[in-house]
Amino acid sequence: MKVIVLGGDGYLGWPTALYLSKRGYKVAVVDNFLRRHYDDEMGVSSLVPIEHLQRRIATWDAVTGLTIKSYVGDLTDESFVYKTISEFNPDAIVHFAEQRSAPYSMIDRDHAVHTQVNNVVGTLNLLYAIADINPDIHLVKLGTMGEYGTPNIDIEEGYIEIEHNGRKDVMPYPKQPGSFYHLSKVHDSHNILFACRIWGLRATDLNQGVVYGQETDETILHPDLATRFDYDAVFGTVLNRFCVQAAVGVPLTVYGSGNQTRGMLNIRDTLACIELAILNPAEQGEMRVYNQFTESFSINQIAKMVQQAADDKVEISQIEDPRVEAQEHYYNAKHTKLLDLGLLPHHLSKAVIKNIIDLASKHSNRVDHLAINPTIGWKKTKSVLMTVK
Amino acid sequence: MKVIVLGGDGYLGWPTALYLSKRGYKVAVVDNFLRRHYDDEMGVSSLVPIEHLQRRIATWDAVTGLTIKSYVGDLTDESFVYKTISEFNPDAIVHFAEQRSAPYSMIDRDHAVHTQVNNVVGTLNLLYAIADINPDIHLVKLGTMGEYGTPNIDIEEGYIEIEHNGRKDVMPYPKQPGSFYHLSKVHDSHNILFACRIWGLRATDLNQGVVYGQETDETILHPDLATRFDYDAVFGTVLNRFCVQAAVGVPLTVYGSGNQTRGMLNIRDTLACIELAILNPAEQGEMRVYNQFTESFSINQIAKMVQQAADDKVEISQIEDPRVEAQEHYYNAKHTKLLDLGLLPHHLSKAVIKNIIDLASKHSNRVDHLAINPTIGWKKTKSVLMTVK
Repeated sequence: MKVIVLGGDGYLGWPTALYLSKRGYKVAVVDNFLRRHYDDEMGVSSLVPIEHLQRRIATWDAVTGLTIKSYVGDLTDESFVYKTISEFNPDAIVHFAEQRSAPYSMIDRDHAVHTQVNNVVGTLNLLYAIADINPDIHLVKLGTMGEYGTPNIDIEEGYIEIEHNGRKDVMPYPKQPGSFYHLSKVHDSHNILFACRIWGLRATDLNQGVVYGQETDETILHPDLATRFDYDAVFGTVLNRFCVQAAVGVPLTVYGSGNQTRGMLNIRDTLACIELAILNPAEQGEMRVYNQFTESFSINQIAKMVQQAADDKVEISQIEDPRVEAQEHYYNAKHTKLLDLGLLPHHLSKAVIKNIIDLASKHSNRVDHLAINPTIGWKKTKSVLMTVK
Repeated sequence: MKVIVLGGDGYLGWPTALYLSKRGYKVAVVDNFLRRHYDDEMGVSSLVPIEHLQRRIATWDAVTGLTIKSYVGDLTDESFVYKTISEFNPDAIVHFAEQRSAPYSMIDRDHAVHTQVNNVVGTLNLLYAIADINPDIHLVKLGTMGEYGTPNIDIEEGYIEIEHNGRKDVMPYPKQPGSFYHLSKVHDSHNILFACRIWGLRATDLNQGVVYGQETDETILHPDLATRFDYDAVFGTVLNRFCVQAAVGVPLTVYGSGNQTRGMLNIRDTLACIELAILNPAEQGEMRVYNQFTESFSINQIAKMVQQAADDKVEISQIEDPRVEAQEHYYNAKHTKLLDLGLLPHHLSKAVIKNIIDLASKHSNRVDHLAINPTIGWKKTKSVLMTVK
């Protein structure tokens, strides 16, 4: 089975490519290195040093004897998309290739527009290319749990049966995303659903929670295979950031009340979920939706777990929430479909957190303290970015 | 009160500008003449000859002594948007300035991408400019009833109370749009709702039905003031197109079963609704949604009414539906909010239809028969456009 991983040089794209390669899939990665460019733009680096894609692929070959093909180009470039898909002729395409930071999308107008155009046009090109080249290709698209926002009712997996004035229908779950980035994913979801309906495409939309961790069975085979680890306020996710703060002994910064609750999952579960999606392709004309997370925690719970894993040697400090989001809210999001397909979750534990803190400690000399605190505010239309030391 | 009409050179933008000008508003129109460019691209023209914007404005001044200011530029050009809004300093902005044809958006990838980028980026620029320059400016945005699709439950005005597993919430009404154009409007709606929430903007989203008619009290004051009248398969709407077919004695072409039902309204009601929206601004932080139509008809009902108005001298012929849409469906869309504000609808009648047929007859020598039949198919990713005579 042949799989293209779009965004295959990124935090999750790279480990996904290795995981699938190891499990016998013929894998190609596609990337335009935009994620590395964002590092340059923001003046930050992955905490764990990462190699260039060429070196990564060469080392993978040297260590395992397995080949990963690479295509360097941009999904917003129609001819590149058509050429790549025609040439590799995949059975499935895993689509990570989007600007994925909410704060980045909220810097100012330019970044909001970049995020929506990059994500929406890239995905539109992909839909057209699949429809034209081979409508049987299964599109496995990464969405986000953030598409749903925090409604006062249970969050279902993509669709909800609504009874209204004595009639019933199953409809797309109403979305209330919380940033221009999250909005771009909602736009994608609507476009994909439509393409499935008119052209009979097959798509699985994975509404992923917040991913934590950095090591997978494949990336630990050689230092060259490491994936990136972001702890900065723009691209870092909450648990990873807390672990870095614990490693360097600065207070864990909780935004606002800390009662905001989010679905989360281990990086290893991301890989397993992607494969489950590939192994169970959507029907022709169907956009299947899975909520891809394993546990829900409030930010305060996460902070306390990290504090405990750090043997209470770190403080928790509340800072003003840079986002506009509900501080207190109901949260009950369904996530049974991937479990039904056989997902065996790696649950969050003290040992897992200790492991991430140890990893951060090993690279603590690379931590840029100025990069940790948020400078991008949702209420402002223009944020002045930190001056990096 | 000062109002900017974006897309003020278009089918509805121009009559709206005149209507507001006549009623004492200080009006500026903004346009980039993209609609006129689409005519050149498609090789079709408005059935009723239209003058250039400069002439239109000069004649309006000559006839009424009223001044309409004009700004020529593109909403996707950020600096133009900021400059224009800063200079004119409006109380309200009426936003018609989007690519508005579903078939046009379905021609091929280029047109789908153009439609979504043009509409989404233009509206994003507008939201940022309003937030930066004066968040009190009331944005009156044209959406479409086509955003809702044809669910099996009643369509509410923008939001719906959902009871689910014993809990309740009022949520955005789930959208199931039927073209890349309609999708662009859904993307806009999500972006606008978010901007209202984070920046406290005021917006009214008008989900408009299919508009018919061409004459308003203002446009009939002088031939130079006429607005465009589209009957072609790409930009023409159904009732106007049927009237032209009746005028030239060719069968009224019903797409598919003809049982597709749509909300409709007279062009004069569009103008009244826009003013009602302006006079009743949304609260700070609120995106108010009105369903802007007055009556619902099936395509077959419309065809029969036109046939009767033409004294049964025209046939109705069913052709294959170029769209992917439900042929039989429930349709009960609420539209009480504008009535509650005082809208007095012009209902569709034999006399109204006769009037449109007469108008079409007057210009029947300008009808391009090749332009009437649909050449753009939803199931195809690339449509070969007609060869114009």
